[in-house]
Amino acid sequence: MDPDAVAKAFVDHYYSTFDANRAGLGNLYQEGSMLTFEGQKIQGSQSIVAKLTNLPFQQCKHNITTVDCQPSGAGGVLVFVSGTLQLAGEQHALKFSQMFHLMPTPQGSFYVLNDIFRLNYA
Amino acid sequence: MDPDAVAKAFVDHYYSTFDANRAGLGNLYQEGSMLTFEGQKIQGSQSIVAKLTNLPFQQCKHNITTVDCQPSGAGGVLVFVSGTLQLAGEQHALKFSQMFHLMPTPQGSFYVLNDIFRLNYA
Repeated sequence: MDPDAVAKAFVDHYYSTFDANRAGLGNLYQEGSMLTFEGQKIQGSQSIVAKLTNLPFQQCKHNITTVDCQPSGAGGVLVFVSGTLQLAGEQHALKFSQMFHLMPTPQGSFYVLNDIFRLNYA
Repeated sequence: MDPDAVAKAFVDHYYSTFDANRAGLGNLYQEGSMLTFEGQKIQGSQSIVAKLTNLPFQQCKHNITTVDCQPSGAGGVLVFVSGTLQLAGEQHALKFSQMFHLMPTPQGSFYVLNDIFRLNYA
């Protein structure tokens, strides 16, 4: 398992799916998955997707600035991302940081156990 | 184990130690610990402390803006921090984001298994 390759493939997939079809993120989370979004704690795939699809904007575009990763010690991978989020109709992009804890599935893929998102206000 | 209490106590201890005596951070890391500092990967307590103590500034002060945490699924705690770093003699503070993966020790304490640090340039 190459953590850098896992992180790169995950980041590409996650943000392109987010920007094209947020509901499609559901199969990346499981029942024990946790999202902390701007301080709000949400648990479980269904609740997490409901939160993401109900965010108060329709179209958005993530631009990734940095991706760091490390093995987490249990077959998992920690992914730490910084970038900007451009909302349709807004002049300025929002800076954000986000971390994911990816865990292996029996099928040889990964799911998101932990997800923490924060906007970085200027 | 209350992840919020662990995270708060750790953040208070980590940044006050960093600002007062960086060499004192050594006992928070172990041989398997990993630090990714602005993209540079460093492993092991001794190398990590060498990196932190050799950063090109003497006095600094961290101000913490947000602390988020989640249990990591293996008795560990993920801590996600944003804030600013004021260097002595510099007019403007630097914004940063940092994540830690804390793992329990047999003695009932925690050590840092994973540490990823990034400055958030404006």
